[in-house]
Amino acid sequence: MFITFEGIEGSGKSTQITLLKSALEATGKSVVTTRQPGGCPLGETLRSILLSTQTKNLDHRAELFLYLADRAQHIAEVIRPAQNAGHIVLCDRFADSTVVYQGYGRGLDVAMLHELNDIAVAGAWPQRTILLDLDPEQGLRRALARNLKTGNCATEGRFEAEDIDFHTRIRDGYLALASLHPRRYAVIDATPDVATVAKAVWAAVSSRMSE
Amino acid sequence: MFITFEGIEGSGKSTQITLLKSALEATGKSVVTTRQPGGCPLGETLRSILLSTQTKNLDHRAELFLYLADRAQHIAEVIRPAQNAGHIVLCDRFADSTVVYQGYGRGLDVAMLHELNDIAVAGAWPQRTILLDLDPEQGLRRALARNLKTGNCATEGRFEAEDIDFHTRIRDGYLALASLHPRRYAVIDATPDVATVAKAVWAAVSSRMSE
Repeated sequence: MFITFEGIEGSGKSTQITLLKSALEATGKSVVTTRQPGGCPLGETLRSILLSTQTKNLDHRAELFLYLADRAQHIAEVIRPAQNAGHIVLCDRFADSTVVYQGYGRGLDVAMLHELNDIAVAGAWPQRTILLDLDPEQGLRRALARNLKTGNCATEGRFEAEDIDFHTRIRDGYLALASLHPRRYAVIDATPDVATVAKAVWAAVSSRMSE
Repeated sequence: MFITFEGIEGSGKSTQITLLKSALEATGKSVVTTRQPGGCPLGETLRSILLSTQTKNLDHRAELFLYLADRAQHIAEVIRPAQNAGHIVLCDRFADSTVVYQGYGRGLDVAMLHELNDIAVAGAWPQRTILLDLDPEQGLRRALARNLKTGNCATEGRFEAEDIDFHTRIRDGYLALASLHPRRYAVIDATPDVATVAKAVWAAVSSRMSE
C-alpha cells in the first residue's frame, strides 16, 4: 500500500507520518517513510536547490521539471522497490503537490501538470492521500516556528517566504483535488492537537486497509 | 538570430562555435556563445549530474526532466535576454538533443518528447540548426582523445561510455530530425579538416542571414 500526505506548510505532515508509522508497525506491518522532494541522493540535491532561499530567479517551468525529475527518480529508486519488497510506503508530498504549487500557486496550466505527472509517476499512484487541511495563517505560524527551532529557515524556507495569498491558493487547490478524487483522498482537519489528528489519520488508513 | 549546433560526441561543435563566433565578430556582429546542459548556475549544477560518470542508475525519465529543467532556466536566464539585447546567440546543443538522446537513444516516446520540448522551449526555437554529421566511430575516437587531453573523462564522459549502437541511433535520429525540418537544418559533413567544415558552417549561416 502506498499512502501520500499532502497539505500546506505547517499542517503537520511529518509529525503525522511518524505517528502513523509507529501505529502501523505496532500491528506488525513493515513501513518505509520517505519524502518529495528528496528521498534519494539525486532528490536530496534537487531538494536543496528547490527549497533553499538562496535559489533566486528560478524559472517556473524549470522548477516544475526539477520536481518531476525528483519524482521519477524517487519512484524508480525508492517507492517501487519498497512496494515490491512488501512494505507500506508513506510519502511526505507527492504528485498532487506539483499540481497545487505549480498550478494553483504559480499559475501554470493545471491540465498540462496532470499530463506531466502521469509521465513522471508512470502508474505508481497512491491508494490513499491524507490531506491535512489547515488555515494558511495558522500553518505558516507553525512552519516558521519549526524552521526557527530547527535552524533551517534558509535551507528549507523558500515556500514559507511566499505571501498569504499564495498559501490560500495552495489550500484551495488541495481541496479542489480532494473533491476530484473523493475515493483516494481523506480530508482531515489539522487544527486540533496532534493526538486528535493522529486518530483521524489512523481511521482513514485502517478503514482502507480492511477493505 | 539564434543558431544551435547539434551532432554526436566528437563532431566538433565547440570548435566550430568558436570559429563561427570569430567570423561573425569580424563582420561587426555581437555574439553570445552558450551550451546545454549548462550556461547558467543551475544548468552547470545539472550538467555535473547529467554528464558525470559518477551518476549511476539515473532513471530515463528523471534524466529527461533534468534536461528540460536546464533548458527552461537557460532560455529564461540567458537566451531570451541575449536576444532582447540584440546579440546573435550560438548554443552548443539544444532541444533536438533531447529528442535524439532520450528518444532515439534511450527509447522514450518521440512524440511525447516533442511536446515536452515545446513546453520547455516556450517559443524560443532557433532559426538555424547546424548538424555536424560524422561517423560515430570517428566521433567517439575524437571525443575520447579530447577527454583524455582535458582530463575530464569522469566529469563529462557519461555519454561517451555508451556503446557504438547507441551513438549510431543518435546519428540516425539527427538525420531524421534534419529531414523533418529541412529549412531550419543545415547538415554539414564533419569528416574533413576543421577549416573546411568552418567554411561550410559559414556558408550555411551567412546565406540565412542575408535572406
